[in-house]
Amino acid sequence: MFNNIKEAQLRLEGVANVTPVMTSRALNHLLGAEVFFKCENFQRIGAFKFRGAFNCISLLTGAEKKRGVVAFSSGNHAQAVALVGKMLDVQTTVVMPDNAPAIKLAATKAYGATVIPYDPETESREDIATKLVSEHGFSLIPPFDHPDVIAGQGTAVMEMIDETGDLDMLLVPCGGGGLLSGSAISAKGMSPECRVIGIEPELGDDATRSFHTKTLHSVKNPQTIADGTRTSSLGELTFPLVLEFVDDMKTVSEQAIIEAVQFLFYRMKLVVEPSGALGLAALLSQAVIPAGRVGVVISGGNIDSSTMRRVLNFNLKPSVDRHQR
Amino acid sequence: MFNNIKEAQLRLEGVANVTPVMTSRALNHLLGAEVFFKCENFQRIGAFKFRGAFNCISLLTGAEKKRGVVAFSSGNHAQAVALVGKMLDVQTTVVMPDNAPAIKLAATKAYGATVIPYDPETESREDIATKLVSEHGFSLIPPFDHPDVIAGQGTAVMEMIDETGDLDMLLVPCGGGGLLSGSAISAKGMSPECRVIGIEPELGDDATRSFHTKTLHSVKNPQTIADGTRTSSLGELTFPLVLEFVDDMKTVSEQAIIEAVQFLFYRMKLVVEPSGALGLAALLSQAVIPAGRVGVVISGGNIDSSTMRRVLNFNLKPSVDRHQR
Repeated sequence: MFNNIKEAQLRLEGVANVTPVMTSRALNHLLGAEVFFKCENFQRIGAFKFRGAFNCISLLTGAEKKRGVVAFSSGNHAQAVALVGKMLDVQTTVVMPDNAPAIKLAATKAYGATVIPYDPETESREDIATKLVSEHGFSLIPPFDHPDVIAGQGTAVMEMIDETGDLDMLLVPCGGGGLLSGSAISAKGMSPECRVIGIEPELGDDATRSFHTKTLHSVKNPQTIADGTRTSSLGELTFPLVLEFVDDMKTVSEQAIIEAVQFLFYRMKLVVEPSGALGLAALLSQAVIPAGRVGVVISGGNIDSSTMRRVLNFNLKPSVDRHQR
Repeated sequence: MFNNIKEAQLRLEGVANVTPVMTSRALNHLLGAEVFFKCENFQRIGAFKFRGAFNCISLLTGAEKKRGVVAFSSGNHAQAVALVGKMLDVQTTVVMPDNAPAIKLAATKAYGATVIPYDPETESREDIATKLVSEHGFSLIPPFDHPDVIAGQGTAVMEMIDETGDLDMLLVPCGGGGLLSGSAISAKGMSPECRVIGIEPELGDDATRSFHTKTLHSVKNPQTIADGTRTSSLGELTFPLVLEFVDDMKTVSEQAIIEAVQFLFYRMKLVVEPSGALGLAALLSQAVIPAGRVGVVISGGNIDSSTMRRVLNFNLKPSVDRHQR
């Protein structure tokens, strides 16, 4: 798998953004550690998902590309598939809930994707996608449970460690585990002593329970503000990879997530969506006690105005603002 | 003056952040130009003001440093002076309105500054500061009208052009003109063909009128959302420098400023205060038609929650969100 990530990195050269690694004197001082943020909020479409989608679609055969691809997602993966389709001249169809935010719908359509709306109360998006696959010969581009998607997602941490050098610890948000498993494989391959910890919201703690019990657990539509991690469970591929390459899993409260988004906004001037702030939430809430050189993957920055308002309205803990910038 | 900026750059080495230059494919595509943003929102204290304050206070004599410094400001300059005082072990006193936001007051105090509150309705901060200077022998660190402050502010664009190479156009926000005149001197010294344009809010268009009439105009407490540019007029030093080194001045509406802050937030994932978004506002509103390689100085990112809420509540023009990321 490590070599697949290396190959994906070559494939993404000049195509994906080389996102910056940012630091905060205030945070390092507060934590007594050196924290490096890999800012995938600055990736194309505003999230790491571009990497996996591009790698996966690039590896289709010419005939598969000609027939087109389908994805189901209301979030960053849909936009990633739509943009890659446009770039590689592959017809894309995206199955989206009919109550998806107008902004995301418009963005997906703007990339030229055909959007198939469905009623999430009465229809199954998997069934619709499967039907489209058999009717039109589309290739399904899954959001995380595919080796080429996982390899693509692993390039963010590979790029990060190329820049920072060895890390002692790496914190990665976990939804379906594509980013987490890819990141863990990169980290262990490049910096073998690095302790890799996956971070989940308490409200959607299926992967943490799965990790500790070594049995796959799932959650149903958890109402966490971290909408990128509402996935019901790890996948057939990602679950064993997480068990093999990840050292620990921790959870954080909704309050800790909001405080982390606030810290990134007010102190670091970064727009980060709640899922992207999970790693910092673990550090600020002391769910993880950092040591040495700590990498944190900021997975994305696609936050809508109502979520941002909710973050701004949440009372700032005095400690968050008291620290020196 | 150009050499003073070069010297300031050496002085700031390893002290100020070398802030990133960021770009947006979507924006370049929309404008048909190549736009480079110098992101001083990532500077220490969240704004370029750190550069001028550090350069100015560093250049005091040992005896002056021992006696301490005084500044009057309710904004970024106060925090910059307070932080530099802490770093260089110089006692700092800041004269602030008694209705200043609690967050800014707390941040200034956290750096160890003595805060002297005053009633802006009945007292003059200049009188209070002058009294402190004569009573205690403090050195006054003015927010813009001082050669060492101007030289410090000029280092941002020097650093930018070191990275980007020649520019055809440079857009800089204008309040008291310290950043604008320093930036213009750097740009003309390094990239002589570069056309330098200062940008002001329509509601506080004193510098634009002064520039076009060659007579100093002033405004009284303009109610623009761009609070960093509410300065009443250019200074004794900055006015002639602006006349000599700046090619044009343009104004932008409040709506254009808000749309620029939104674009930076939603599309570029950057937290930028309204004053910092003036350059982009000029481009999006076509107050300035870009050509070739365009530098834009983002002056700072210190936006409070009520201003950010105002920005989020403002109806997004469809065009802002329709562009491809």
